[in-house]
Amino acid sequence: MREAYHVELENLATKLADMSVQVADAMERATTAMLDSDLELAEQVISDDTLVDDARADCEEQAYALLALQAPVATDLRVVLAAIHAAESLERMGDLALHVAKAARRRHPDPVLPQDVRKYFSDMGAIAVRLARRTEQVIRTRDVEAARSMEEDDDQVDDIHRHLFSVIMAKDWEHGVPTAVDITLLGRFYERYADHAVSVARRMVFVVTGRMPGYSSAESDAV
Amino acid sequence: MREAYHVELENLATKLADMSVQVADAMERATTAMLDSDLELAEQVISDDTLVDDARADCEEQAYALLALQAPVATDLRVVLAAIHAAESLERMGDLALHVAKAARRRHPDPVLPQDVRKYFSDMGAIAVRLARRTEQVIRTRDVEAARSMEEDDDQVDDIHRHLFSVIMAKDWEHGVPTAVDITLLGRFYERYADHAVSVARRMVFVVTGRMPGYSSAESDAV
Repeated sequence: MREAYHVELENLATKLADMSVQVADAMERATTAMLDSDLELAEQVISDDTLVDDARADCEEQAYALLALQAPVATDLRVVLAAIHAAESLERMGDLALHVAKAARRRHPDPVLPQDVRKYFSDMGAIAVRLARRTEQVIRTRDVEAARSMEEDDDQVDDIHRHLFSVIMAKDWEHGVPTAVDITLLGRFYERYADHAVSVARRMVFVVTGRMPGYSSAESDAV
Repeated sequence: MREAYHVELENLATKLADMSVQVADAMERATTAMLDSDLELAEQVISDDTLVDDARADCEEQAYALLALQAPVATDLRVVLAAIHAAESLERMGDLALHVAKAARRRHPDPVLPQDVRKYFSDMGAIAVRLARRTEQVIRTRDVEAARSMEEDDDQVDDIHRHLFSVIMAKDWEHGVPTAVDITLLGRFYERYADHAVSVARRMVFVVTGRMPGYSSAESDAV
């Protein structure tokens, strides 16, 4: 039973790593679609989201099979449940990338963002994608240190997100309410995406080490 | 084993029903705190949120115990996993109520909402709370029909949420950007809360019947 358990757990981890790549790619393309008003790219992200949903269902099936056939207990059981939670967060990250792509489609051919906030979103997008790619790395290489380093990136997203609010709420904001509303929602999508990435990485540290890291990943209150 | 399994599953369902009451109360009080600029009530919701987090941890422990000691398979296994997912959604509903309470605290003693949008939030709040209370009812009475009826309430929240966007984006909006930003986020909190409530109820139908209802509860795109 022990060997079969480890082979199946390895399969499940591989699927989670693949999902991390999917949602990293989705957010990368969604951000580009938004910044470049690229409708075709936005449509691609939108239609590819079902693949993420399928991958999540696939991870859950793998986890069910593992639980049903191996009936793990103690830490082994917690590891499988952590993987199930991770798949749920990864699916949610895919949804958030989808929301960004939909914003790009909704405003097309107009740009979603005025010139003076583009930089914030290209930065948040780059960090968010890096977080998802690091999650993949944590899973594939079992590099627990990489997981710990993600906290800093997440803090940076929170800082940009907070700053964004001060920009759109400033007295000299000249782009009107509809643009401010778009930016408010988009900022939140990136912030949540980064939170989920950190939460997945924490769970993955647990999956590969059997121990939950001690640092906090509570949702930030940068609203 | 079968009897012990059912006793433990019953305990877990009771805990989930109790959590539904907690998050219904939280959203009810958070909405009142926001509408009445009641700082004390807001603080109460904020400090009580840890109880919801504790309840979720408790549900997970109960589920772990059930899996480890009874090693259920097939439908029984899926039922336990559905309960774990439901606990996660309920905790998230608690977080969303917390966000509403924090908005009330942040703007105190000023009202968060201008007069002309209060009605939308008092309606969304009432429906959201009703949804959470119906979730409790679904769990306690196994009234599957009550779960199905929740779809309609969720649609209503989506309608109000969509309408809210047209109000704040209208040319004659006179309350400025910061208020529009608050309303954008608050609207999203209620909309997500309702989505989670429906998702919990669907999972509960599965927990009490062993069959997943066929209707959809995908996140609405009312953004």
